[in-house]
Amino acid sequence: MVNVLKVGIVGLGTVGAATLKNLSDNAQLIEQRAGVRIEIAGIHARNRKAKRDIDVSAYPWFDEVTALIDASDLVVELIGGADGAAYQLIEQALSAGKHVVTANKALIAHHGYALALLAEQNKVSLLYEAAVAGSIPAVKAVCQSFAANRIEAVYGIMNGTCNYILTQMRETGRDFNDVLKEAQVKGYAEADPTFDIEGVDAGHKIAILAALAFGQKPNLSGVSMTGISHLNADDFKFSQELGYKIKLLAIARIVDGSVLQVVEPCLVPVSSPFAAIENAYNAVLIQCDRAGTPLLTGLGAGGDATASAVVGDIIDVARGICLPVFGVPASSLKEPSALDPLETVGRYYIRLSVQDKAGVLADIATILRDHQVSVDSLLQHGRGKGQDVSMVIETHEVAQENLTDAITLISRLDVVSGDICTMRVEDSL
Amino acid sequence: MVNVLKVGIVGLGTVGAATLKNLSDNAQLIEQRAGVRIEIAGIHARNRKAKRDIDVSAYPWFDEVTALIDASDLVVELIGGADGAAYQLIEQALSAGKHVVTANKALIAHHGYALALLAEQNKVSLLYEAAVAGSIPAVKAVCQSFAANRIEAVYGIMNGTCNYILTQMRETGRDFNDVLKEAQVKGYAEADPTFDIEGVDAGHKIAILAALAFGQKPNLSGVSMTGISHLNADDFKFSQELGYKIKLLAIARIVDGSVLQVVEPCLVPVSSPFAAIENAYNAVLIQCDRAGTPLLTGLGAGGDATASAVVGDIIDVARGICLPVFGVPASSLKEPSALDPLETVGRYYIRLSVQDKAGVLADIATILRDHQVSVDSLLQHGRGKGQDVSMVIETHEVAQENLTDAITLISRLDVVSGDICTMRVEDSL
Repeated sequence: MVNVLKVGIVGLGTVGAATLKNLSDNAQLIEQRAGVRIEIAGIHARNRKAKRDIDVSAYPWFDEVTALIDASDLVVELIGGADGAAYQLIEQALSAGKHVVTANKALIAHHGYALALLAEQNKVSLLYEAAVAGSIPAVKAVCQSFAANRIEAVYGIMNGTCNYILTQMRETGRDFNDVLKEAQVKGYAEADPTFDIEGVDAGHKIAILAALAFGQKPNLSGVSMTGISHLNADDFKFSQELGYKIKLLAIARIVDGSVLQVVEPCLVPVSSPFAAIENAYNAVLIQCDRAGTPLLTGLGAGGDATASAVVGDIIDVARGICLPVFGVPASSLKEPSALDPLETVGRYYIRLSVQDKAGVLADIATILRDHQVSVDSLLQHGRGKGQDVSMVIETHEVAQENLTDAITLISRLDVVSGDICTMRVEDSL
Repeated sequence: MVNVLKVGIVGLGTVGAATLKNLSDNAQLIEQRAGVRIEIAGIHARNRKAKRDIDVSAYPWFDEVTALIDASDLVVELIGGADGAAYQLIEQALSAGKHVVTANKALIAHHGYALALLAEQNKVSLLYEAAVAGSIPAVKAVCQSFAANRIEAVYGIMNGTCNYILTQMRETGRDFNDVLKEAQVKGYAEADPTFDIEGVDAGHKIAILAALAFGQKPNLSGVSMTGISHLNADDFKFSQELGYKIKLLAIARIVDGSVLQVVEPCLVPVSSPFAAIENAYNAVLIQCDRAGTPLLTGLGAGGDATASAVVGDIIDVARGICLPVFGVPASSLKEPSALDPLETVGRYYIRLSVQDKAGVLADIATILRDHQVSVDSLLQHGRGKGQDVSMVIETHEVAQENLTDAITLISRLDVVSGDICTMRVEDSL
């Protein structure tokens, strides 16, 4: 074993700065655990003079990443983005026989298979614990700790921005846009929050976990994504009345041999451990055939928490651990067989805005009956005569395809105004 | 890398049988993940003809463990017990250059340091994920996932028997002995439950996690252990009234550079994630300097869940992962500097049985005042005149030594009868 592992760090934003700080602050402890000294071979970022959280003048600066790759045993990619500079850096580093550690979920979800082949050809590690749920060891849990298990499903709350917004909407009764703006001011949401609030970020993460859990190529295009921007204050009131909380769940689940991958706001029972995961916290539940349903929770984002995962991966490399990128040789990863959510069954919450007059319920009930959608409970909060009222229907188990057809017809009724909100009820969590 | 890893299994009780079944049922999956075929070189147990959960006739039976060690690359020790046959087996296997996987917490807590030296001298692995909290990857989390962190504390609910009894006592209002008997009938408690209910089992586990977290030699004699057999139905009523649940916590915590190790029933806020861990579930919280406070929960016992951890360790060996036994070279493990719990401060719950007459409270309050024990709240549930009543005092933060001295004096008062129950209030969880 070598006595020094030379690390090059590219990208010096919040996570990059926190990674340098972690390696420096805990250097002695890390050297003892890693068995080798971890030396910063050099750093690089787009703008050398950008204002940073830490002073980086003590580290060798490289203007060219090629030279930095040459000087390193391991390259840390913290640029971000699915393509462009991040992709080129990783491809170049792996091709040069250098280990790579990244926090880049979009890149692994999009290009993980090709990069895994490249890493394994070059007999180097490509590690990305920090890409999924921040400090929570979700990747290692699926890939190593539960390797004895046939994994049946993975459920996650893996987007801190959405979880923060949902928590605040429930606690304060405010509307989505109001809470989003506050989240942006507080730094919990990006200036352009689309990737977070439309479920794309959680989609990247569940595509990665599904690849690890089920031994398939990452299949981002097979993830059905629904965001949270259509939820309103009524949804929180009604779901609370029914005994649920709303959580943006990322789910990968084996159904009849196919893999269902969805990101969508769901109703989870208030007594569920998932209901207790609030604000910026994340959670990952792994449904195993032997180990039951272990649940891992912790900080899903933030510089220090993400750096903890990055440095943990660096220590794994220093310790000589080199596993296949998705837990099995990339060449043996299966072609994904994605299941259309329309082919699944489930219980549903339906919230619609209707005119408060005679016959409305009969019209809706007839359509539901014609599509074999059976009603479990119905809530309606009355307003002034002549105004629209919010009505919520909770269904028994139904085929999602039937439900979708019924909703399409109901939305065309004259007495129904505005969008109809449907959410899956996840009683088993 | 070899194409076959030959595994010898010694001890064929519940976990041994489940390990064989796991390796057999998921053989194809495990081979793909491990990168090599895992072959059962042979099995051994004290009694070949014992009734077992599975048919073992297809596996080569060895009458002598020495021959089985010779035939194996890796030996799985599932005999149990801190000494005797289990210790001899592991010592012999490591000396012969064979990897060892064990679920034996008592043995690792007692002899982990000596065995770590032996394993590292022989350049083989000694793995024991199954020894701590069943299927929960607590060992790997502390040793690998959070290796970048200075760990400040580990808190665990790590004894399923106690957690089951405490959950049932709270839910049903029944007394300890009644619930213990039921737990024995249901198989949640051993015929001799001493190790579980007196906190010794959880003590073994926290001594192991403390060694990993703080880089010290396992220090079982430095664990202060208090069990749960002195708790009664009143404790559950009072703690509920105060907004807490009672949990047997195993705690290892750095205080002023020393390591506090305790196992004791504590009050945790009902809103704490720990309060949601009920019955046979376990939980481990790791307080990190970077990653926040990740919490891992899952099944803490049972054949399949424990076997999942055993087989996970076998797969690690098959993948060529070989780390120091306690995360750093055994030779560099520190001599433990144990902190006496009497030297700590904390908030306390005190339940005592007093005569219902004038002046009692004044006597008690005077002693508390004289020992700088400040009262936060006081509860008393009245009974008939002349009968004893239960009184509960919740203190502000006090030095445990002062509290203990005060309790000694209070227990000598004529108006106080029976034992006084004190529990630490863990508000920070």
